[in-house]
Amino acid sequence: MPHLGLHCTWDVYTNDTQKLSYVPYIREVLHKVVDELGLSKVQEAFKQFDPIGVTGFILLEESHISIHTWPEHSYAAIDVFSCKDFDVTLVKNMLADLLHSDTIEIHELKRGNISQSGASNAS
Amino acid sequence: MPHLGLHCTWDVYTNDTQKLSYVPYIREVLHKVVDELGLSKVQEAFKQFDPIGVTGFILLEESHISIHTWPEHSYAAIDVFSCKDFDVTLVKNMLADLLHSDTIEIHELKRGNISQSGASNAS
Repeated sequence: MPHLGLHCTWDVYTNDTQKLSYVPYIREVLHKVVDELGLSKVQEAFKQFDPIGVTGFILLEESHISIHTWPEHSYAAIDVFSCKDFDVTLVKNMLADLLHSDTIEIHELKRGNISQSGASNAS
Repeated sequence: MPHLGLHCTWDVYTNDTQKLSYVPYIREVLHKVVDELGLSKVQEAFKQFDPIGVTGFILLEESHISIHTWPEHSYAAIDVFSCKDFDVTLVKNMLADLLHSDTIEIHELKRGNISQSGASNAS
């Protein structure tokens, strides 16, 4: 079924909670993923929680990437939504490497049913 | 199962494509939803596509809300991720009203399995 975008979430569990704790490294992780996927950045925002934990996003021409970390729970939530299909497993492998995780759960959702929107006649 | 956050998506189909076309109204929709849910804004970013279409994001203390619109396909994709549970149906009803939609698909994902993260002993 034709769709307008792919929305994927990665639930990342890691014992290396230092990696999840501060903005500079988490920001670097997001930029690496966006660069590897060949997506285009529009604007970004990151917030450091006290004493640890990060929330952040990069708005993309193609939609967005976000991350929210709970180092106290050894957990980070990442998602990418893009109107351009992307390699979900590639991102999983990058996150496993960059966040030293061997447990990552993936959920994929195809969004925007073009036939349902009645836009199949659109140019 | 205890979880750290609820991630919900709303796929909104509407014939009132004017509502989906420009930043000011879409920004207002997102702010209304965030205010109604009692969530706290950190930073926001919106982009106007030429000639129509909007992508936008509000980073929240509790995580995020985003919207990406395809007026040419009569479609908008919204998501909220929050560490605080929220009323999914309330948001659906607001979007139906604000975007004049009678077709909204909802997907809910509970994210961050606390028992899996080994953090069940955390305070």
